[in-house]
Amino acid sequence: MYPQLLAHIRRYVDLTSDEEKSLCEKMELLKLKKKTFLLEPGKLCKGNYFVLTGLVRQYIITKKLSEQIIAFGLESWWIADQESLFNKQPATCYIQTLEPSEVLFLNESNREILFKEIPKLEKYFRLMMQKSFVAMQRRVGFMLNQNDEERYHFFAKAYPDFMQRVPQYMLASYLGFTPQFLSRLRAKKT
Amino acid sequence: MYPQLLAHIRRYVDLTSDEEKSLCEKMELLKLKKKTFLLEPGKLCKGNYFVLTGLVRQYIITKKLSEQIIAFGLESWWIADQESLFNKQPATCYIQTLEPSEVLFLNESNREILFKEIPKLEKYFRLMMQKSFVAMQRRVGFMLNQNDEERYHFFAKAYPDFMQRVPQYMLASYLGFTPQFLSRLRAKKT
Repeated sequence: MYPQLLAHIRRYVDLTSDEEKSLCEKMELLKLKKKTFLLEPGKLCKGNYFVLTGLVRQYIITKKLSEQIIAFGLESWWIADQESLFNKQPATCYIQTLEPSEVLFLNESNREILFKEIPKLEKYFRLMMQKSFVAMQRRVGFMLNQNDEERYHFFAKAYPDFMQRVPQYMLASYLGFTPQFLSRLRAKKT
Repeated sequence: MYPQLLAHIRRYVDLTSDEEKSLCEKMELLKLKKKTFLLEPGKLCKGNYFVLTGLVRQYIITKKLSEQIIAFGLESWWIADQESLFNKQPATCYIQTLEPSEVLFLNESNREILFKEIPKLEKYFRLMMQKSFVAMQRRVGFMLNQNDEERYHFFAKAYPDFMQRVPQYMLASYLGFTPQFLSRLRAKKT
């Protein structure tokens, strides 16, 4: 059983103990070293990953051959290439651990079985998608409406622990500016 | 009954004729003039809108007091302020018709009733959210990985009809550049 996953689900829907058991049996526990790839471009994304411990990043390689971070996965976050999953097409991004991590993998065909057995899980995953969509839409809003410095300060205030945990150059990539610019911003504060 | 909505749902889940009837009874048909506001900042977004005919835009006013378009709603697209809906907090955006439009409104409390009566609709709305998330994530990818000209050409190729229908300055706003830049791009082509 995976109490952390069950606690997360319980925030949105109630499962019976049989349903909890059935769900946990479908999850695959992955114990991963730092820098392990869960997904690479060209491969099919086969399901969703739930981060138990550690830290995961999702990124693309831009045409300028630099890494561009699309999303991070922290404890109790789901991560996947939703486009690859939805359209059953090859992934366009990497998903990689940044720290030694424990991750639960839910294969898409197992998820379909679970949806039939436990229809309430549709609601849970609908709400997870809605939450992810809101986060992504806010990001678009920030990119269009905030300059680099404002974006940095907003993020630093909203996610202080996260700012400490993620390597500087990755944070810069996520926020969409150069590591040099980030260093200058940090220097200003001290 | 609203055959256009039912045809859209049928692409994802099968409903019985009783379920279809029950669903349609919960929808409210709005016949709207051009430039009607469906939502304004500060008000609570009370549900989801399904566009039958016409065209709708979702936009914010930036700190520089210009309009920034977040999304468009075309025929058979759903549109709402998901953040306002999800967190039950005041909306931060406008939703407004750009053409005379017919729109179906599904109040959130009616949607909750429908989810209890017809659990299959959870799947439908989960897939709609996943689709919207994918579109929004692609948009972030484009913003980070394409210059203005590439973004324009991608969009022109992917959505030719749409490009014709939307006023120039709104298209520029959506793509994140100035109307002047868009005029120069178009002039280049002829």
